[in-house]
Amino acid sequence: MTLTPANPAFAARLSALLPEGVLRQPEPRHLEEPRGRYQGQAGLLALPQTVEQVSTLLREANAARVPVVPYGGGTGLVGGQVMPDGPAPLLLSLERMTAIRAVHRQENVIIAEAGAILADVQAAAQAADRLFPLSLAAEGSARIGGNLSTNAGGVNVLRYGNARDLCLGLEAVLPSGEVWHGLSRLRKDNTGYDLKNLLIGAEGTLGVITAAALKLSPVPAGQGTALFTVKDPEAAIALLALARDQAGEAVNAFELIHQQGLEFLAETQPQVRQPFAPAPEWSVLIEFGLPRGLDPETALAELFTAAEQAGLAEDGVIAQSEAQRQALWSLREHIPVANKAIGAISSHDISVPISEIPAFIERGHEAVAALGAFRINCFGHLGDGNLHYNVFPPKGRKREDYDHMRGAVKEAVHELVHTFGGSFSAEHGVGRMKTGDLERYGDPVKLAAMRAIKQALDPNGIMNPGAVLRAV
Amino acid sequence: MTLTPANPAFAARLSALLPEGVLRQPEPRHLEEPRGRYQGQAGLLALPQTVEQVSTLLREANAARVPVVPYGGGTGLVGGQVMPDGPAPLLLSLERMTAIRAVHRQENVIIAEAGAILADVQAAAQAADRLFPLSLAAEGSARIGGNLSTNAGGVNVLRYGNARDLCLGLEAVLPSGEVWHGLSRLRKDNTGYDLKNLLIGAEGTLGVITAAALKLSPVPAGQGTALFTVKDPEAAIALLALARDQAGEAVNAFELIHQQGLEFLAETQPQVRQPFAPAPEWSVLIEFGLPRGLDPETALAELFTAAEQAGLAEDGVIAQSEAQRQALWSLREHIPVANKAIGAISSHDISVPISEIPAFIERGHEAVAALGAFRINCFGHLGDGNLHYNVFPPKGRKREDYDHMRGAVKEAVHELVHTFGGSFSAEHGVGRMKTGDLERYGDPVKLAAMRAIKQALDPNGIMNPGAVLRAV
Repeated sequence: MTLTPANPAFAARLSALLPEGVLRQPEPRHLEEPRGRYQGQAGLLALPQTVEQVSTLLREANAARVPVVPYGGGTGLVGGQVMPDGPAPLLLSLERMTAIRAVHRQENVIIAEAGAILADVQAAAQAADRLFPLSLAAEGSARIGGNLSTNAGGVNVLRYGNARDLCLGLEAVLPSGEVWHGLSRLRKDNTGYDLKNLLIGAEGTLGVITAAALKLSPVPAGQGTALFTVKDPEAAIALLALARDQAGEAVNAFELIHQQGLEFLAETQPQVRQPFAPAPEWSVLIEFGLPRGLDPETALAELFTAAEQAGLAEDGVIAQSEAQRQALWSLREHIPVANKAIGAISSHDISVPISEIPAFIERGHEAVAALGAFRINCFGHLGDGNLHYNVFPPKGRKREDYDHMRGAVKEAVHELVHTFGGSFSAEHGVGRMKTGDLERYGDPVKLAAMRAIKQALDPNGIMNPGAVLRAV
Repeated sequence: MTLTPANPAFAARLSALLPEGVLRQPEPRHLEEPRGRYQGQAGLLALPQTVEQVSTLLREANAARVPVVPYGGGTGLVGGQVMPDGPAPLLLSLERMTAIRAVHRQENVIIAEAGAILADVQAAAQAADRLFPLSLAAEGSARIGGNLSTNAGGVNVLRYGNARDLCLGLEAVLPSGEVWHGLSRLRKDNTGYDLKNLLIGAEGTLGVITAAALKLSPVPAGQGTALFTVKDPEAAIALLALARDQAGEAVNAFELIHQQGLEFLAETQPQVRQPFAPAPEWSVLIEFGLPRGLDPETALAELFTAAEQAGLAEDGVIAQSEAQRQALWSLREHIPVANKAIGAISSHDISVPISEIPAFIERGHEAVAALGAFRINCFGHLGDGNLHYNVFPPKGRKREDYDHMRGAVKEAVHELVHTFGGSFSAEHGVGRMKTGDLERYGDPVKLAAMRAIKQALDPNGIMNPGAVLRAV
């Protein structure tokens, strides 16, 4: 199927159908992405304000065979939001559709338009004394439509699930321009195929999400945060099991931290206070969110006592104030900042079955060491089996010196992940960066089914071409 | 597409490819369903023992254009498991694939074959000191593959979600006979379209689930159950919100009970002890599952005090022993038994947005009263917005006297549900019984997308023809 560019004739046809101000020239920010690997083409920018305008845009693009790239907050890390080659696309940004359409407090439901900033959705929930638990580093600029299209993860997945698990219903425009009115507030509705979950995580290749009905949760009565040092990842996993035996689902977050990350922090972010000196080889950040009647500090102290007795924890600090709690989280949240300052040769957002983590880390160390004297910062959402596994140059060297090694490092890590039954993209998605990995490691039967579904719902192939599935 | 029957020539071809004992003649139990509305055709029965055998069966059926009806525990209530007309099908029962392949205790994961009985999956979890929370009346005979194919609900959805929310990965055979090896234990894996959720709830029309990786939960340290009387459904909803303010996600179940159900119980199940006399117009069964350190009886007593002060609860009993807890649940679980003994003209498994429930119940009463002096038993999973709304003949009359009214009653109820933005099938699915409702009330854009997906994945239309989507 040959696509045609969003040329002046197409722009003219659209502008006759749409109010003034919808069609624009893209700004530089629309054509860049955080890792600087892809540069978008100028093309045409549309900033619709209503679902009807999105419908018009897709209908016309489909008729003219013009590629469409849906655009959220632009924070994606795998190039899903920029189309660097092929016919210049229609860039469809939802940034003017930001309304919180409704908060149904009694139902624990919020209805947000796709362009709403994640932090604004969280704030609207908070204003109703409810929690919208999706939380990630980019929450100040990521938009909920993009979070859903990429099935975003973050730090609260352990307790509350991924973006997919927080969504009850969608309003979406299919490639034909037809609008699916699926903005259901129902907790149970078994009437046909799960179109909602098909669009979630499809990274804009099957349609455009324009609004979502999202689940809210009660705000835990008390939150407590602690940092425990552990001997090794095996002890960390046993500690997680112990924490769950004691606190059930109240374990909000369980984040693994490696010495390497703390050393990068000390080097590049000296303002971030570190509780332990010297930096422990392994530590875990634990957060409890407990119901009324239970004191988080006490519960964490009990966990530490039990963990120490079981030989699982060696040292620990438990935040005694909100400021201390924030300080511990700040430590965790600055690790990616430090990583960026150091500059990784190759970064990996991977997952393996939780009980395989210790063996994976050991084998990963060997595999990377075989390629060179690199430094590894392996950290992240241990409770979800999701590790950020980043490989850095030796001290005193620059990432640029190892550009030629990036492919080999990536391949070594991804091959190992595959051996362990893991995923080469736990939470960032496929985008354009990982289409080759998907072809290499994805189940071939699933891939064929995906291609058949893409062909069925987007027969002209206009939606985000080149993302997730490469043109064949 | 013309389908051909599972005739002797087809049986002969299959038997050359499969071990002895796989092909059988269906027993009567395979051709019946609980409500007695559909009678299956004799056809051919296959009882495969391995996924490879399922693959052979589907590949051959697809090549020969023979319809295939996947069969779990046979407990479905909408005729999804029997094909009453058209060419005699291959009935594919998973009843010999019942293995619990693995329990990954540390990961909170269990791997079960599709034919495993739900109660056996629960027991295997319990043996590992974990909870598999899917729980429903038919759990002693329903099989997990069927539970997933129909996205089963039950009494713990409020806290733990539907079957879909409890599944991490699937092994499934697509209509071509190809095996999708998607039995992932990963909590996070963003690598392509969500084929898992597409198969879940597709009622066997897109493929056959042969095994599943399922999520386990910690067993709550303490469980407590209470029955409170409330003035009306509005008070019940406010009480639910209060319970969640106090106990967070620890509210396992919140079941609405109407006087009519208690009267049916007294009439037909006099052995079931009733705590209140006379039967209250409205009551709610509440279950808390609390973490270590909190006492369920105390928490429920605090809830009652707060509810009484707020004018939400009038009277209450709190179970003081496991026997009393079981007795309260027995009350709830015998209501469907009593309903069956009385005999409904029409039964409805509906959901509406939770805050619309009071208005729906009021308008439903009016709509049914306009058709006759019928009795209504409206009860069920209030916390999920899922009501079982059953309409019965006047006292002293039989359901058979009103067979001619069934259509009108159903239409009145489903029209009203639609007006309230609800679902005509909250947890039972579409099957063959509700295909007309799906065409009438389903979103037309979603329906067209469903047809396109069906055509893409099952181009010959062999999978469970007539279920979910009528042949067009």
